[in-house]
Amino acid sequence: MMYDDNYFMKLALIEAKTAFEAGEVPIGAIVVQQNRVIGRGHNLTETLEDATAHAEMQALTAASGTLGAKYLIDCTIYVTVEPCVMCAGAMSWTKISRLVYGASEPKFGYTQKAPTALHPKTEVLAGLMADECSELMKRFFKDKR
Amino acid sequence: MMYDDNYFMKLALIEAKTAFEAGEVPIGAIVVQQNRVIGRGHNLTETLEDATAHAEMQALTAASGTLGAKYLIDCTIYVTVEPCVMCAGAMSWTKISRLVYGASEPKFGYTQKAPTALHPKTEVLAGLMADECSELMKRFFKDKR
Repeated sequence: MMYDDNYFMKLALIEAKTAFEAGEVPIGAIVVQQNRVIGRGHNLTETLEDATAHAEMQALTAASGTLGAKYLIDCTIYVTVEPCVMCAGAMSWTKISRLVYGASEPKFGYTQKAPTALHPKTEVLAGLMADECSELMKRFFKDKR
Repeated sequence: MMYDDNYFMKLALIEAKTAFEAGEVPIGAIVVQQNRVIGRGHNLTETLEDATAHAEMQALTAASGTLGAKYLIDCTIYVTVEPCVMCAGAMSWTKISRLVYGASEPKFGYTQKAPTALHPKTEVLAGLMADECSELMKRFFKDKR
């Protein structure tokens, strides 16, 4: 088994599909440190009746819980969709080393509304498996109409 | 007893003092709907070993839990210090009606880094009891040195 960015983004997509099946906006996130998954999450805003329960928030809090540490040193977060301002701000506080995301989010993404929201040292890779990630979102919102 | 903005900001200050006594950055938050406190919180980043455990996040999640609803309609959040980008983004998702904060936060406050992070319909009152709120922060960081 090859552990690379595609492998972990596929795990994030599995989380997103779990959200989809629960009637949640299908976004998933995985936090990885040295090829070990230390946090995972998917969007739970409807299930928890909490508008802040985004996939990234779940995954970041889970990762800190696993490490018993506030800071996610040498960690990468994989998210299927570009994070919003809240989640980018959350990543900043954790000082996470790297962000990899799939589909762009022109309306709510941090790159539009708060381009400096991430920690300046966080590396970003955008657009990984963007088609698969956005296809799931499109299917969800099409079903809703 | 007069229920006004000062009254609720004093409750937020009590939360902030609880954080102070626990060795946490002393910030407190209260969510109020029709003069009823439906959520409260103080900074718990050290206690929970979670960099995202800001006062506002606790208070917003608690308020949604009380209401059993994602959206904080006709609610006001009182925070002792200007919210960061993450917390302003969280408020935006809850569509909270009003934000009242005390001390400004020139380094991490949303007004510098993401001035459009709040929901466009959220009213803002800045600087309420700012001296008391900032005095607590100054005292905390002085003790730390």
